[in-house]
Amino acid sequence: MPIPAAAIDALQALLGDRFSQAQAERDLHGQSETFHRARPPDAVAFPVSTADVSGIMAICHAQGVPVIGWGTGTSLEGHALAPHGGLVVDLMRMDRVLDIRAEDLQASVQPGVTREALNTELRATGLFFPVDPGANASLGGMAATRASGTTAVRYGTMRDNVLALEVVLADGRVIRTGTRAAKSSAGYDLTGLFVGSEGTLGIITELTLRLHGQPEETAAAVCAFATLEAAVECVTATIQSGIPMARIEFIDADVVRAFNAATGTQMHIGPHLMVEFHGSPASVAADAQAFGALAQDFGGTGFDWATTPEARAALWKMRHNAYRSCLALRPGATAVVTDVCVPMSHLPEAVAEAARDIRAEGLLGPMVGHVGDGNFHSQILVMPGNDAEMAAAKRVAIRMAERALSVGGTITGEHGVGIGKRGLMRAQHGDAVDVMAAIKAALDPQGIMNPGKMLPG
Amino acid sequence: MPIPAAAIDALQALLGDRFSQAQAERDLHGQSETFHRARPPDAVAFPVSTADVSGIMAICHAQGVPVIGWGTGTSLEGHALAPHGGLVVDLMRMDRVLDIRAEDLQASVQPGVTREALNTELRATGLFFPVDPGANASLGGMAATRASGTTAVRYGTMRDNVLALEVVLADGRVIRTGTRAAKSSAGYDLTGLFVGSEGTLGIITELTLRLHGQPEETAAAVCAFATLEAAVECVTATIQSGIPMARIEFIDADVVRAFNAATGTQMHIGPHLMVEFHGSPASVAADAQAFGALAQDFGGTGFDWATTPEARAALWKMRHNAYRSCLALRPGATAVVTDVCVPMSHLPEAVAEAARDIRAEGLLGPMVGHVGDGNFHSQILVMPGNDAEMAAAKRVAIRMAERALSVGGTITGEHGVGIGKRGLMRAQHGDAVDVMAAIKAALDPQGIMNPGKMLPG
Ligand SMILES: Cc1cc2nc3c(=O)[nH]c(=O)nc-3n(C[C@H](O)[C@H](O)[C@H](O)COP(=O)(O)OP(=O)(O)OC[C@H]3O[C@@H](n4cnc5c(N)ncnc54)[C@H](O)[C@@H]3O)c2cc1C
Ligand SMILES: Cc1cc2nc3c(=O)[nH]c(=O)nc-3n(C[C@H](O)[C@H](O)[C@H](O)COP(=O)(O)OP(=O)(O)OC[C@H]3O[C@@H](n4cnc5c(N)ncnc54)[C@H](O)[C@@H]3O)c2cc1C
Repeated sequence: MPIPAAAIDALQALLGDRFSQAQAERDLHGQSETFHRARPPDAVAFPVSTADVSGIMAICHAQGVPVIGWGTGTSLEGHALAPHGGLVVDLMRMDRVLDIRAEDLQASVQPGVTREALNTELRATGLFFPVDPGANASLGGMAATRASGTTAVRYGTMRDNVLALEVVLADGRVIRTGTRAAKSSAGYDLTGLFVGSEGTLGIITELTLRLHGQPEETAAAVCAFATLEAAVECVTATIQSGIPMARIEFIDADVVRAFNAATGTQMHIGPHLMVEFHGSPASVAADAQAFGALAQDFGGTGFDWATTPEARAALWKMRHNAYRSCLALRPGATAVVTDVCVPMSHLPEAVAEAARDIRAEGLLGPMVGHVGDGNFHSQILVMPGNDAEMAAAKRVAIRMAERALSVGGTITGEHGVGIGKRGLMRAQHGDAVDVMAAIKAALDPQGIMNPGKMLPG
Repeated sequence: MPIPAAAIDALQALLGDRFSQAQAERDLHGQSETFHRARPPDAVAFPVSTADVSGIMAICHAQGVPVIGWGTGTSLEGHALAPHGGLVVDLMRMDRVLDIRAEDLQASVQPGVTREALNTELRATGLFFPVDPGANASLGGMAATRASGTTAVRYGTMRDNVLALEVVLADGRVIRTGTRAAKSSAGYDLTGLFVGSEGTLGIITELTLRLHGQPEETAAAVCAFATLEAAVECVTATIQSGIPMARIEFIDADVVRAFNAATGTQMHIGPHLMVEFHGSPASVAADAQAFGALAQDFGGTGFDWATTPEARAALWKMRHNAYRSCLALRPGATAVVTDVCVPMSHLPEAVAEAARDIRAEGLLGPMVGHVGDGNFHSQILVMPGNDAEMAAAKRVAIRMAERALSVGGTITGEHGVGIGKRGLMRAQHGDAVDVMAAIKAALDPQGIMNPGKMLPG
């Protein structure tokens, strides 16, 4: 259903050239990073203020127009596509760091600030914002998907690092959730409700974030393991032993192949762990030594320490580019990206079963994982148009999700539900899905906020 | 409005002698720890299973009977009173530890397990559950109030330590929220919504909790400061410097007087900090030394280290008994307990202003605080029947809350809203209160779950 003319007129009057129906903008805001097919909106808005967003919502509410928030468009389950048309609200012009309160370890930002932009601003303060999904995503999008990434094992996810929000509701009302205090018991945790709501309850127009002190000392290393099982069992043992890892990432042999091809490194082809320690010089040394001893027990070899800041930056850049490097293993391919997360004790078996299943289906699916959280991904490479391959990839993804559920895990550790995982929501949550739907209906009775996402139809 | 006869019959048929209308039970379940006057329910139920709770809710839903959950009844804002009559559901017979999964650092428990009972069960595993509100509260009640306590500065609050719940909804449906994975992005955070909901959305019948490794080494100490300002400024500096405190508690001169009277200690009458460090022997030594140096900068003196487990137990027992010891400073008195929490940088001024205000009103209000979170309490001692004194105490409490709000803090850091703080909810949350009310109406359309609490009328 196209946007009614009255709504178009009102949006144009409100936004002027911050409103566009140009095909190029619609196309740009109608595609995703993964296999989901393009679903462009009917128009795109570029608000610069909360007042803009509130005005947009009031118009769309009055006229029943679907509204889809948009950050950097890096979400992996078709979250920001427009399957029902409507208006994409691109928040990237709301990109100001509003306030850094170093003494309280807090910053307030607009939603279009990216994590890298924030960390650049913070550099001189001795503080940093830790949540790191690899992609240079917007903080609004990261909150909306409850993102995490390589450092969650130490610093937590967006759930743990968002203290307060400003949100524009479906009807244009503006509310504030949370406080600047470290904790609060004053009523329902609305901040926690909007974090992870994927734009289905409101548009986030401001975030108050928890900052952390830049570590006095950092050490990072890669080491190789003979088998995938040995690498992952080493992770489980590391976490159970309480060694405070800042990062502990698993990559399999295919990912190493992709790294070598993309960056010219000469890593041994086989499973590796990439680790990082943060702390005082003494504690980092102690932690690194304790990890080294454990790794040795699991046959870890070829420790390669990144001793300079430049070497560390190169290491994590390589990790962050894993998605594109792996795509390049099969030129022209797109990806089905899995994202299960399981209790630590089930991680070795979960990774091993996934690897077997991918092999059994004859697929190429390089695996990486934020394994310190029990979270891992397979990026199954599929040729567009090859329906049999796509069907096989989806079967594997569903079986991984089902196995995760059978051991008390989740269908998505950090990417979110979007379009891709709606069908699995009831398998995970049972009747709790009806409670989610009741909340959705209470806050967005017309169903205009990112329709067709998250909740099963 | 009394419970309709049909509901009484149905409850009796369901529960047999697990249902009581005896005056003694009603009275026992109709009083609170603080100044709030007794409001007994019409009857009390003692479920032993989720099925019991579900049956109770189905009956009460059909007949419009108010239902009030009850743990150990230690909440401080009249949370579990029955101002509209109805049925108290006492959950203390659901007191089984269901499952300890040491390798995943998790336990599943029924809501009537107390934190001390859980820690007793855990002793042999090398793990512990850290959230410590002083009172030996039920884990269900602690989740319902989003409790924290002395260790939150290190281990977080109930928000951070509840992974999953089983909840019976207003109409008797049973849902499960959350997972056993360390993180999840699968839909709205219902666990976070029920934690802190004070029994207004459903009854918690099972909790999955995060456990932590018992520290290899523990050190605890008390030290004195010349002024309240110096003690609190030392806390702010400690937190800002990143020294990982396991506990950092403020007590003022009146509390020390109460301790000396109650336990026969001979502490110097003046403000003190009580601190604890957890870690390896080396890290504890380093942390204790770093704190000692900082404390000296602020004039801290008379460090008294509790070196044996027995001495530490005695120290924290004294702290945990502060409430009763302070009541004994004025025999016959009851208490208005304040609970603001502010950003760290505002803590010294907030504590000093509160102390001045209490003095200016001519009240006796000993102060303690989980100051590492920016959270502190005054326990204002009031003689029952002395209306002028009660009015003065309430004025002080409201001004403390207003000052906390003016610096971005909260009216309640950990105790919750109950009856006592309903009137301040809109001052804190503005229109977000309407969103809370919409959620409440969606999940409890008849308003039978703990009516008259949390949300303003
Ligand atoms: C190479 C690569 C690696 C990745 N690695 C990780 C990882 O390690 N961990 C991880 O968690 N994710 C990862 N992702 C996924 C992605 O980066 C995250 O989901 C990220 O949080 C999306 O942010 P965004 O700004 O791109 O949001 P978008 O994709 O633009 O939007 C995501 C969702 O949020 C909504 N939304 C956006 N902004 C707002 C707002 N202000 N208010 C309300 N709703 C809004 C949208 O409607 C949409 O539903 C990766 C992606 C790529 C491409
Ligand atoms: C001396 C003393 C010191 C204290 N110190 C602290 C402190 O440091 N930090 C802190 O946070 N609190 C503190 N408190 C307050 C109190 O201990 C906490 O609020 C505690 O969480 C209450 O638990 P309870 O089992 O007593 O709950 P109750 O008082 O029985 O109930 C509290 C609320 O939860 C609801 N409820 C109870 N069980 C359930 C359930 N299973 N499902 C749904 N709703 C339920 C009730 O309806 C009520 O609204 C202190 C209290 C005292 C008396």
